[in-house]
Amino acid sequence: MTDYSNLSDAEKLEVIKNAVRSYPDFPKKGILFRDVFSVLSNPPIHTLLKEQLVNAARNIQPPIECVVGLDARGFLFGPIIALDLNIPFVPIRKKGKLPGKIRSYKYALEYGEDTVEIQEDQIKQGQRVLIVDDLLATGGTLKAACELVTQVGGTLAQSLVVMELVDLKGREKLPGEVVTLIQY
Amino acid sequence: MTDYSNLSDAEKLEVIKNAVRSYPDFPKKGILFRDVFSVLSNPPIHTLLKEQLVNAARNIQPPIECVVGLDARGFLFGPIIALDLNIPFVPIRKKGKLPGKIRSYKYALEYGEDTVEIQEDQIKQGQRVLIVDDLLATGGTLKAACELVTQVGGTLAQSLVVMELVDLKGREKLPGEVVTLIQY
Repeated sequence: MTDYSNLSDAEKLEVIKNAVRSYPDFPKKGILFRDVFSVLSNPPIHTLLKEQLVNAARNIQPPIECVVGLDARGFLFGPIIALDLNIPFVPIRKKGKLPGKIRSYKYALEYGEDTVEIQEDQIKQGQRVLIVDDLLATGGTLKAACELVTQVGGTLAQSLVVMELVDLKGREKLPGEVVTLIQY
Repeated sequence: MTDYSNLSDAEKLEVIKNAVRSYPDFPKKGILFRDVFSVLSNPPIHTLLKEQLVNAARNIQPPIECVVGLDARGFLFGPIIALDLNIPFVPIRKKGKLPGKIRSYKYALEYGEDTVEIQEDQIKQGQRVLIVDDLLATGGTLKAACELVTQVGGTLAQSLVVMELVDLKGREKLPGEVVTLIQY
């Protein structure tokens, strides 16, 4: 097994970036799809990614008190961070998936609209929330998640994302601090 | 914080079971929805669940070599197990979500049909695969996942599921060993 322990953080992030496979014209022509799953199928590099995410989350000051993960690929990373920091994990899902008292947020897509939801009683008033997802592209879903967290009384501490497509400028849309591990 | 370390495995599973909130008539009338997210929002009980899943996966003989998680709630648990055992995590997703060379499996639902997909090159020939999901109900999706894993050359080591709705007899449909942590 390759030993990455002597690498700097910047070198570790480069290793992770090189493990992300790219697929031209997926899901449609003209889009270059970055597949984070190719990192998860490589155990030592998956471990590097876990370490980088957990370190980023631990370094937030004042400390975060809750991790919110976005359906579905935020679920790959959010629970790992929440377990390591010993704080709650709370999901944001597409419409109709969550039971109980929910708060919804509708947002515009390129064509049409979409809705994300959170369970209202899962965020305590003023709780410092970290939002986690795999990809920052145009930022539509992540912005909706930020709005939802604020609407149910949370304080947005940071959005932490594995990969950022810089040219799409999704970052400019988002309230609060945005940290991405690797950029394209 | 509550200390669960002196409990037996059976008692720990009972703590986890008691933390699962139930919602009548969701997503439709007559269905009692078991919400695994209520475990993840409780850090010490989330930690108990992680331990139980990791122990179950470690106890499989011969050892498993790959963890397959089902979209979306299998993503909450699969990567954690894969990291702990230092083996690959591979997703099975709904149609159209995975890039590259994929294998599809179509299966019947109560009304209509659905399709699940896996990337063909992610499972090595003969590799011993653990399939992970949150809920065993009628077993349709899990059975489709088992078929897919076998079709791409994997050896089905076990299906490991957090919650089982015993009355629905999904277990009878599934090939291979099926282990569930808590039963209703």
